[in-house]
Order: sequence, then C-alpha cells, then structure tokens
Amino acid sequence: MPLKDYLITEEPYYQSTGKEIAHFEAAYADRMPIMLKGPTGCGKTRFVEHIAYRLRKPLVTVSCHEDMTASDLVGRYLLDANGTVWQDGPLTLAVRHGAICYLDEIVEARQDTTVVIHSLTDDRRILSLEKKNEVVRAHPDFQLVISYNPGYQSVLKDLKESTKQRFGAIDFSYPSAKLEAEIVCHESGVEQAVADKLVKIAERSRNLRGHGLEEGASTRMLIHVGQLINRGVPLGEACDVALVLPITDDPDIRSALGSAISACA
Amino acid sequence: MPLKDYLITEEPYYQSTGKEIAHFEAAYADRMPIMLKGPTGCGKTRFVEHIAYRLRKPLVTVSCHEDMTASDLVGRYLLDANGTVWQDGPLTLAVRHGAICYLDEIVEARQDTTVVIHSLTDDRRILSLEKKNEVVRAHPDFQLVISYNPGYQSVLKDLKESTKQRFGAIDFSYPSAKLEAEIVCHESGVEQAVADKLVKIAERSRNLRGHGLEEGASTRMLIHVGQLINRGVPLGEACDVALVLPITDDPDIRSALGSAISACA
Amino acid sequence: MPLKDYLITEEPYYQSTGKEIAHFEAAYADRMPIMLKGPTGCGKTRFVEHIAYRLRKPLVTVSCHEDMTASDLVGRYLLDANGTVWQDGPLTLAVRHGAICYLDEIVEARQDTTVVIHSLTDDRRILSLEKKNEVVRAHPDFQLVISYNPGYQSVLKDLKESTKQRFGAIDFSYPSAKLEAEIVCHESGVEQAVADKLVKIAERSRNLRGHGLEEGASTRMLIHVGQLINRGVPLGEACDVALVLPITDDPDIRSALGSAISACA
Amino acid sequence: MPLKDYLITEEPYYQSTGKEIAHFEAAYADRMPIMLKGPTGCGKTRFVEHIAYRLRKPLVTVSCHEDMTASDLVGRYLLDANGTVWQDGPLTLAVRHGAICYLDEIVEARQDTTVVIHSLTDDRRILSLEKKNEVVRAHPDFQLVISYNPGYQSVLKDLKESTKQRFGAIDFSYPSAKLEAEIVCHESGVEQAVADKLVKIAERSRNLRGHGLEEGASTRMLIHVGQLINRGVPLGEACDVALVLPITDDPDIRSALGSAISACA
Amino acid sequence: MPLKDYLITEEPYYQSTGKEIAHFEAAYADRMPIMLKGPTGCGKTRFVEHIAYRLRKPLVTVSCHEDMTASDLVGRYLLDANGTVWQDGPLTLAVRHGAICYLDEIVEARQDTTVVIHSLTDDRRILSLEKKNEVVRAHPDFQLVISYNPGYQSVLKDLKESTKQRFGAIDFSYPSAKLEAEIVCHESGVEQAVADKLVKIAERSRNLRGHGLEEGASTRMLIHVGQLINRGVPLGEACDVALVLPITDDPDIRSALGSAISACA
Amino acid sequence: MPLKDYLITEEPYYQSTGKEIAHFEAAYADRMPIMLKGPTGCGKTRFVEHIAYRLRKPLVTVSCHEDMTASDLVGRYLLDANGTVWQDGPLTLAVRHGAICYLDEIVEARQDTTVVIHSLTDDRRILSLEKKNEVVRAHPDFQLVISYNPGYQSVLKDLKESTKQRFGAIDFSYPSAKLEAEIVCHESGVEQAVADKLVKIAERSRNLRGHGLEEGASTRMLIHVGQLINRGVPLGEACDVALVLPITDDPDIRSALGSAISACA
Repeated sequence: MPLKDYLITEEPYYQSTGKEIAHFEAAYADRMPIMLKGPTGCGKTRFVEHIAYRLRKPLVTVSCHEDMTASDLVGRYLLDANGTVWQDGPLTLAVRHGAICYLDEIVEARQDTTVVIHSLTDDRRILSLEKKNEVVRAHPDFQLVISYNPGYQSVLKDLKESTKQRFGAIDFSYPSAKLEAEIVCHESGVEQAVADKLVKIAERSRNLRGHGLEEGASTRMLIHVGQLINRGVPLGEACDVALVLPITDDPDIRSALGSAISACA
Repeated sequence: MPLKDYLITEEPYYQSTGKEIAHFEAAYADRMPIMLKGPTGCGKTRFVEHIAYRLRKPLVTVSCHEDMTASDLVGRYLLDANGTVWQDGPLTLAVRHGAICYLDEIVEARQDTTVVIHSLTDDRRILSLEKKNEVVRAHPDFQLVISYNPGYQSVLKDLKESTKQRFGAIDFSYPSAKLEAEIVCHESGVEQAVADKLVKIAERSRNLRGHGLEEGASTRMLIHVGQLINRGVPLGEACDVALVLPITDDPDIRSALGSAISACA
Repeated sequence: MPLKDYLITEEPYYQSTGKEIAHFEAAYADRMPIMLKGPTGCGKTRFVEHIAYRLRKPLVTVSCHEDMTASDLVGRYLLDANGTVWQDGPLTLAVRHGAICYLDEIVEARQDTTVVIHSLTDDRRILSLEKKNEVVRAHPDFQLVISYNPGYQSVLKDLKESTKQRFGAIDFSYPSAKLEAEIVCHESGVEQAVADKLVKIAERSRNLRGHGLEEGASTRMLIHVGQLINRGVPLGEACDVALVLPITDDPDIRSALGSAISACA
Repeated sequence: MPLKDYLITEEPYYQSTGKEIAHFEAAYADRMPIMLKGPTGCGKTRFVEHIAYRLRKPLVTVSCHEDMTASDLVGRYLLDANGTVWQDGPLTLAVRHGAICYLDEIVEARQDTTVVIHSLTDDRRILSLEKKNEVVRAHPDFQLVISYNPGYQSVLKDLKESTKQRFGAIDFSYPSAKLEAEIVCHESGVEQAVADKLVKIAERSRNLRGHGLEEGASTRMLIHVGQLINRGVPLGEACDVALVLPITDDPDIRSALGSAISACA
Repeated sequence: MPLKDYLITEEPYYQSTGKEIAHFEAAYADRMPIMLKGPTGCGKTRFVEHIAYRLRKPLVTVSCHEDMTASDLVGRYLLDANGTVWQDGPLTLAVRHGAICYLDEIVEARQDTTVVIHSLTDDRRILSLEKKNEVVRAHPDFQLVISYNPGYQSVLKDLKESTKQRFGAIDFSYPSAKLEAEIVCHESGVEQAVADKLVKIAERSRNLRGHGLEEGASTRMLIHVGQLINRGVPLGEACDVALVLPITDDPDIRSALGSAISACA
Repeated sequence: MPLKDYLITEEPYYQSTGKEIAHFEAAYADRMPIMLKGPTGCGKTRFVEHIAYRLRKPLVTVSCHEDMTASDLVGRYLLDANGTVWQDGPLTLAVRHGAICYLDEIVEARQDTTVVIHSLTDDRRILSLEKKNEVVRAHPDFQLVISYNPGYQSVLKDLKESTKQRFGAIDFSYPSAKLEAEIVCHESGVEQAVADKLVKIAERSRNLRGHGLEEGASTRMLIHVGQLINRGVPLGEACDVALVLPITDDPDIRSALGSAISACA
C-alpha cells in the first residue's frame, strides 16, 4: 500500500466541541469536499488527524503558501538516466491511492492550485495531469479537505465564489474554559489549578483582540506556558516567554497583558 | 483511437432549460466556436458533457488559471534518453484527433493562450506549433468551446474584442423552481417535498445577491444539502454545513439566511 | 524547398475595397516593410493570404501575444542526444528561405520582438542570431508585414516611433454595404435578401460603437449569423447567438440591438 | 556524524544580560521553538552560538533574504551522471541529524519558507519533502530558533500571526554600560578608560535614534573603533571611520555626533 | 580572423553634416568610448557603418531591448555532448578580437548590461566573465560606441550619471534641405525636382512635432516615398502609404499633412 | 596560486587626498570590512587598485547591478559530462584564496547579495555555500570592500542598517584644484596651463549641480577632454564632445556650460 506512511497509527488526542465529527462523517459518506474554518491554533489540524484516524484513512497534509504552484500539488517530470520520469505530487498520490488530502490554508496558494481541484470537487472526481495527458479517476476513498481562516482574507486573496460553493464547511473556535483547561493539563502536564489560571489569562488576551492585538493567545500558547512552568520557570516569566513576547512588541499591550497575568496568577 | 479515454460513455444527467441544445448543434454543424456564458454552478460543464455524449465526440476539458501558458495548451518538448521529444498538449490533441475542446474560464488564463486559439477560430482552422515549426490542420470533428462568467470580468481581465467576435454564445442561468427541485431530487435522493423547500431557500439566498452575498446558493449546493439530509443530518444543520457557512462569514448575513431557512423548513 | 507547407495553393476569396493590392505590390517590388492597419475582423489576415497567393510566395504567420519573446521568433537551442541543436524560429525561417512573414498584432508582443526586426527593416536586411553568433542575410524574396489595430493602442503599449517609421502602411475598414452583403452570401450561403438585412443590422451595431459597445459587429459575425440561419435557426435567434450575446452583457445594449434586429428583419 | 563541521568547539565569548540562558534551556528541554528579538548588533547571533556550545549541539545557521525560497532551506534535486539526486538543504540536514537550526531574520524570506516550518513547530515535528514524497520525522535533538528585529517590520513584511504563536520569545537589547565596556575591552583590546569613553559615545548616538538616525551605534561598532585605536589611529579619526561615516551622510547628524565624540574624548 | 564576417567591405553611402568624422577619429585614437545622440532615422547607424569601413575595423552591432540581459552581451554556457561549453556573446567577441562594438539604444536594456560595460570604459579596459572566472583584456582595436535618443528618455529609463560620464558624445540631427534631397535622389532614384518636393513635405511634418506628432518624417521615410513613386505610385498616394499613415491615426493631423502634401506637390 | 591573474603588477597612478591610505591599512590589519563613499568618477576604483598593489594582495572586483543574484557572487553548479560540478563565484574565490573582494555599488544588487556577506563581516568570517552544504572559512588575507554613492540612494534602495554597521567607512570627494590639474596632466598628456583651464571649467560645472545638472564634470571627463586636445581637437570642441554633450541635453545648461568654457579658455 503506497500510502502506508501516511496512516495515523496512534489516536491523536482531540476534545470534541460540538457536532463536528458527526457532520464530517456524513459528508465523508458522499465524499463531499469539506472546508474547516476558524482562527489560528484552535485545533483544525488536530481535528483532521483525529478524523483520519477514526476513518482509518491515510492523511496527506500540504501546507499551502504563495509560491506553491499546481505542479507542487500534482507532480512533475524529473530527469533520470533514461530521460524524464513522472513523479506524482501529494494531491495525485491521495487521489490515486485513496487518502484524505488536507490542503492547509489553501487561500495562500497561487490561483492555479485552486483551479486544479475543481474537477475533483464535483461529480466528475477526476484530476487531469495535463503535462502527462493522463486523467486520474479518484479512488473511492479519496476526499478533499481544506482549511480557511476567515480573519485573514482580503479582497485580493480570497477563494473564488466558484471554489467556495464546491465545499461544505465546519466552523471551529476556541474550546470552552473547562475543556481548554483539560486540554492544557493533558498536553503540558501542569496541574488543574495552574491550567485554570492560564485559561483565564488567555480569555483576557482574547478580549484585547481588535484593541491592539491581532489575535489572542491560542490553546497552543497555553500549552507552551505550561511546559515552561513544568521545567521550573515561574508562571510570570513563563507567560512572558511563551505568551506575551511572541505576540506583541507594543509596550502598552505588553503592560496590559502583564496586569492580566498578575491578576490571574 | 488516441482520444478513447475522453469519450463519455454514459449519458450525463442534464435538464434542458431552453433551446441551448438546438443552437449548439446548429453551430457544431459548421464547427462554429461557442462561448457558454453564465454564473457559477448553473450547469455549463454538465451541458458540455451532455452535448459531447449526444454528438459521440471525445471531450477534452481544460480548467484555465492565471498561471497557465500557451505551452500548457499546445505542448512542449520533454527530455528523453535520445534528446527532446515533443508532447502534444490537450488543445493540440483535440485539434489533431478531432475532439470538442472545452476551455473552462478561459479569461483566467494569460493572454497568450487566447491568441493561440485565433487561427483555430476563423476559416483557417490551423494551429501553429511554433516551437516545432509544424502547422496542424484541425480534424473535421474538432470544435472549440469556452466558458465565460460575465459577473467576474474586470477591465483588466476580459477577453479582447477580437477574440469575442470569433464566437457564438449561449446564455445559461439557474433553472426554474420546478426543474431545479427535480434536479435536486435526482442528484441527492431526497423527496420532492424536501427539494421544494431547498429551492425556496436558494431563491431567498439569491435575492441577497448584491446585498452582502457575492452569489446566491447554486444548484450544486442544494444537492450537497440534500445529501447530508439523506445521511441523517437535520435540515437546519445540513443547510448550515453545505449552504450558509461556505458562502459567508458575516454574522448578519448568516442570521438573514438562518431566518430564511427557518421560514421555509 | 523548406517552406513548401507555407505556400497557399488555392486562391483565398478576397474582395478588394480600394487600391490596396496595387500599393502592396509596389511596396513589395522594393521589399518595403508594410503595416496593415484596421479594426477587428475586417479582412487584414485574408488580404495577406490573398497577396501571398498572388505573388506565389510562402506566408509565415505569427500571432503575437504579450508573453512572446524574441526567441519565439528567432529560434532557440534544443537539447539533443548529441548536445544542443539550433532550431530556427518562424521569422528566421522566412528570412533565410524567402517568405512573407506576417506578424499579427505585433504590438502585443514584448518589446524585444520589435527590436529584433529593426535590422530587417532598413537597408541592412540582416537578422542577427546573437545566441548563435550568426548573421543571416535576408533572402531576396523575404518581406515583413505587420498588423496594427489603432483602436487598441494605449500609451503603455504602442509601437515605438523608431519602429513605425520603418514601415509603409495600408488602411483597412469595413467594406461598403453592397460588397459586404456579397461577401456574406459567398461565405455563409444565405440569399441576397437575408444578407442585405444582416448588413443593415451590422451598420446599426456599428453606430453604437462608443455608446456602450467597444466595437460593432464585424463581417465575420454576419457570416456566423448566416451560417446558423442556413442550418434552420430563425433570424432573430441566430442574431442573438452569433451577434448580440458575444459582444455585450449589458441589458440596455442587448435591448437596443434587439430593436435594431426586429426593425431590419 | 554528518554535522560534525557544525559543532562549535571553542566557547564563544558571551556576557549574559539576564535570564536568557535559563529560559532558553527550559524551552530546549521540550524542544519549544524560540524566537530571538532585538535590534542590530546586540548579540543574538553570538547568543545562539554560545548556547549551541553549552548544549553541545551542532548549529546550522541560515541568513534569510527576500529571494530565498523553500527549496533553499529544504533541498533540491541536482543533476548527476545517473540522473537527478536529492540534496538536503540546511534545514533538512538539521531536522534529520539533530542540530539547532537558526534562521536569521526569517521575516526577510519569502512566505513559503515560513510555511515550511509550520509542521516542525507543532507536536507533529515533521518536515514534508513534497518534491520527494518523503516525510522526515525530526531527530530528538532538533530545535528551531529564529531571529526577529521588531524595529524593521512593516505591515507588508511581518510574520503571520499563525507563525508567531508557534514560538516562545526572548528579548535582547544593548548591555548595561559597565558590561558593554567590558565587552569592548575584551574584543578590541583597548584599555578600560578608552572603552568607557566609547560606551558614552554610543549612548549619545542611541539618543539620536528617531532624531535623524535610524539606529544608534552598536556594540560591534565600538569594537571596530577600539581596533582602529589599537592600530594607532587617533580616537576622533577612529570614531569617524568606524562609527560616524557608516551610519549617516547627513551633515547635521555628523556634526552632532562629532560634538558628542569631542565631549566624551 | 574570427570577425571576418563583421568587416564592411563596400563603402556605405554617407553624407557628412559637420565635424563628426574628425571628432570620432580623434576619440578612436585613444579608444575613448563614444555615444551617438539624435532622433530616429537621422543616420546614426549608417554613420557607424561608414566609420567602421573607413577605419577598416569589424563592426559588431547589437540592438538593445528591455529583455536583454548581460548574458546576451557577454556569453553563456551551452550544453554539449561533453557537458557545458562557453559561447562568447557579441560584446565579448568584439573585446577579444578587436571590433567596434555598437550598442544601439542601450538605454532600453536592463541595467545589468550598462554595468557590464563599466570596466571596458575606463582605463582598465577589461571585461569580467564572472560565470567563467575569466578576465578578458580588450584587444587594442576594440572600441565601444552606443546610441542614445534624448527625446525618448524618462526618469525611470535613463543612463546612470556614472555611465554617461564615461563617454564622449556626438550630436546628430536631420541634414540640411540640400543635402537631404541629394540623399533621397541617391537612395530612391527619383529626380532632383521630386526629391526637393519631398524634403519640403518633410520639413512641414517636422514643424508639427509637439503639435500632435511625436516625431516628423525621417529621411528614411522620404526614401520610401521616392521608391513608391519610382514604381509608378502617384506622389500623393505614395506620401499616404509611406509617410502619413505610418505616423498618425489622428484625422486632424492626417488632414494637416494632406494639405502640406498638396501645397508642395 | 589560483588568483595570480588578479594581482596588480604595476603601480596604479594614485594621488592621495588625505589620510585614506593610513585608515585603510589600519582597518586591513584587523580585516575590518570597509565601505568607500563618494560621487562618480572621483577615484574610488583607482584607490582600491592602488591599495591592493601596496598590500600585494590580489583584487577581485565585481560591478553590482540590480539583476545580480547571490549565485552570481557565490557560485553555482554547472553541468558537465559527469553531472554537475560546482564553480566558485568571484566572492568565494576571494574568500577561499585570500583576495581583497571589491563589490562596486553593492546597493544596486538584489538584497540577497547583501545578506550573503553578513557572516563574512563579523567575527565568524565564514561563507555558507548553502547549495553545496559547505562552510568556507575565510583565508587570513581576505578582506571585503564595498563602494557606496550617497547621492544615489533612495528609501527603496539603501543598505540595511544591519549591513552598514558592519563596515568602517572612508569618504572620497573631488581632489583640490592643484592636485586635479596634476592628475589631468599626467593622464592625458596636456600641458599644465591647459589642465588648469580644464579644472576651472570643471569647477564651474560642479557649481551647476542641483541647478539643472545631476552631477558636475568628473576628473575622468577632464582627462577625456585633454586627450582630444592632444589629438588636435580645439579646446572648445573637445569640451563639447567630452564634457557638455554627455551630461546634458538641456539647451540652457548647454549654453551656461558654453559660456563657462569660453570664459576659461
């Protein structure tokens, strides 16, 4: 099986926050393409790993960026002792052998990559390898998943309407306080009481969003703080290193965050 | 027959909405180039597949994008153990062996691709492979079809007048309510009553076009909603996943759509 | 003879509208470079094919576009089992073996292509293949012809003065009503009476130029309409498909054109 | 050991200015990615060399720039007598064999390079070599360190929020006067009294920041001045050559700096 | 002798209009680089061919354009059965073997080409082939000549001051009426009386410069008109084809030129 | 010795105008990177050749330009019969074998070239050949020298502060009248009296700087004028050819310069 390396063999830790698993599985039953929406670090990548584990399907993940071309997804010719040989790209691998293909932040990629997925996201379910004059019919297990961060899009860089309408969508946001504390405990090893403090600090930082902060602290940052505390760094310093300094250089915001930390600690 | 893989062997489901089939067949009789005009998801691609099936001609489809070059259409030299070998691109394949070549959203492509088709769209019906110094005379069965979405064009990105005048044109829009419900039933498997509700919801969303929505829900989205309902997702949630969330992140529009859904459900 | 494929063996249908043939032949006697000026679809390409047939010279036609480089005209090295081999481009072929080289819409090409023709358009009549360190002296039969659409040029994209001054010029415009009807009959097979109606419709559309239409209907479009009528499509529908829909999406202009068609039909 | 050349075998001179070493080592214990923040020439590069020496880990340093691509970091295919062979880039080397990888001024690089590090900076700790269809799991010793100069960032060129949140951060600034004089003595060989004067001059130049100077004199510049003095150049001339002339061409600022130098000398 | 093909073996017709030959030969005695300044079609290219003939030196001419790179001038590696072989570009040929190298409209080229000539235009007289790590010392006969049209330069596209100062300059403009008529007779074969008329027409067109015309008719255009007259085209039509139509599409200017032609004919 | 060709074997004529030689030699003793600042044609290149001769070190000079990439400096892979072979670029040659590397007008180059020199300009003195995974430690004799013309820089194209602070700087300007006349005599062979006149003319032209002239006449231009005079061209004409015409096309400035020349002649 060519995609063996892409199977997830251990269950990734994931705390469900709604009906997202049921909706995804209903969509997967018809191989409906799915778009995961939500802010940075709220668990979209972990969710798709969890679901791939549940469905026992290999998962091919591609982080998109503005220099990515269709060839990076689809494949290209390489030069060999006997001339050129075709090498499937990650999308073609997934299409041919039946993986879930997860295109992370697809809107960052050049527009040719979004066009390339059109024939995979309607009832044709084919991928044209134009450079090879081959038409690959999708494996029955293949499904396409993309992520999309609504807070980042601009007029210049957005999915085309004709792309959006090809997807079902699932919304993600930060977990509830109780659930988030549970996640921080599990992932960083700190005690419940510390995790509760950290979640309170995060909430305060999220309230500063739009008031000088582009985004508040993510669950991932809280886990970082917890890890430093676990290694003996005092809570205030740990918050500085893993939560305040990375997200702002503005002295006023740093001071506001500092007060929030003192108040919660 | 080199284009055997491009023959459509099963009749694609298509509900005619006017005289488009008669007009297309009259144009095809003289191999007049045709432009299909209309919004996202209203059936242009399905129409061309249907017509290719009716005419028993192979169909070569190319999704155009802004990084596509003339070489992607026409062909290029590849390196081989014995030096370079020429590989026909999809357009050349269609010209040489007699297919219908469908260039989807051609206006997205770089301008060199639109110039390349000029000598195929007047009485010369030739394609110059300049890199190869070969002049390919079109197979008698060859015809060129392009799609064009009037709502998307800007001054910067439009077909040149000298290109437009080479084509006959056929207009597409959403089907009538009755027909659309029939299509939704056929494609998703939901009952008539549910399909009627979904079509009403779609009509309301289409009225929001220009009032916060770039486009209303397409027939394709209704089919997605129907599929989720068929897998046991309640109608409201199914509309959220496959109709509301993909097309808007604006809380007001989401709420307006939500009311429309409640009213029709 | 290397350019045998480029000889035009059957006389292309062409209706002269003035002294353009005499002027061209006088210019050709001294191999003076010639520029054909005029709007879309008024017969420039047909004229140059006709003249090449009259002069019994091969005709090499190149459709220029904004991604065309000097190498596309002049030639390039290709990789071969024994290393690189030079391949003449279409311009070099014409220069070396004595063809008329027709560069269609040269102003679309990148500026390097217009510079490359400078030494061919003064008394030197040489082409420098700089990548090959070869200087090709033009064959005595070689002549350069370019086309130029005055309505399209902008400040950013125009021929340089030092290029324009190297050419004689011949103006083209739409034929007279009588002549145009004759052409439509000949090319589409409709009767005289129908052709007369179509020419009247075209004239009305040309009066809308600058009042919402970028250009009026060309002779080519009338031929398309005639062909559809010949295949049994009613005149009004045929005008819609082959004349109205391709050139405008504006409801007001469509309605104005519709009235003109009704009035003439 | 493939990274032997990247081991730092002599202890680099470094004067700690706070808790930066403790914080870094706590972060390294969990391989938390770290961002070093601070102005030009304040010792970020020296710090990471010092820490790599302390941890006895190889250090792979990459100076980022705006033409750097993901391939420059990750690797590429090279042509060989037997076809193409893959060559690991510096990041892949570090990931595979367990080095600290230091990406200096990462914000200068094209965005694809910042996306490439995403899967290395969460709990996946993998690097996808998409061109090779290989997934490299990070060596247990691998850690990623980046530098970031807050004074340089603009809206157009900043790390994405989703990148920043993946890092802990350590702040750097100029050392205290006493410590800075000690460093200047150690590195340039001048006497304590001279070093004290130079530090005073630097402080005055730093006060001009934002008043005509983009940045004040760095510790590195003071060492240059000291070196020239040690070679017999008088203090005033040495300051001209190594401190005034390189940072300003403005006659007023030059004169202001000149007065400061005279006052301190 | 490798540049034998570049020797001009027949004396090119040239009418001196001042001291330009004496100035050029004085400059050539010290191999001072020379810049020829003046409008389109006034004889700069003919002058440099004439001077090369007088000095019995080979002449390598390069028409510069905005896509020309330093490699196009200097040379490049080509792939061969045994690997890459270096091929000298036209500038390197001239430097190595002692030709006059004429870079026509150098300001059109990319800036790297102007930098490449710096070390050839001071007393070093060397050309660095950086890709080959070879330093070519100029042959004693080598001289560099460039042309420059002051009317065309813009702020964005001008020679750098540090380039201009490396050249002596010779100004060119249209010849006197008497001389110009002599040239038109000689080159087109018309009689003196006709040539006088044509020169008067040209003068009138030159007075329109800046009043709707970018440039007036050049001597080259008069020769074209004369050639058409010689082939039996009436004077008015010949002026239309070879003088009016190529330089303007403005009906008012065409009419003004028409009156001038009628008045002089 | 691989850099033998780069040794300067005859003493280049150079007239010192201050302490620049002493300062440079003190900087060279510690291999401190040096930036030469000053206007066009005032002797920066001659100075660095002179100093290389004095120090008996090979000199590798690179004229930077806006299309120059890091690979042009550092090296690249070339294809060979046995695959790819690495070829050192000029900077790598200098680093490896111990030359002074002079990057002329470095600010013209793309930013990646300025980043590439960072690790060579601090105490690391290493050059990373990232494409080769080789770290070259600088030869003890290696030193980096760059030139920088303060009059040319714009906000868009300036050295980064973090680059500037790595260099000591030496200022250059035009020599005193007495010294400049001496240089003109020596280099062009004219008599003292003529040289004095030329220097006066140059001074007047320099006073026009900012009043219609971008820069005044450089010493190099005076030498050109002297050479023409030596070849028998009258002083007024020689000034026209080698001083007035190259730097201005403005009739008023030409006339102002003409008066200055008449007054001094």
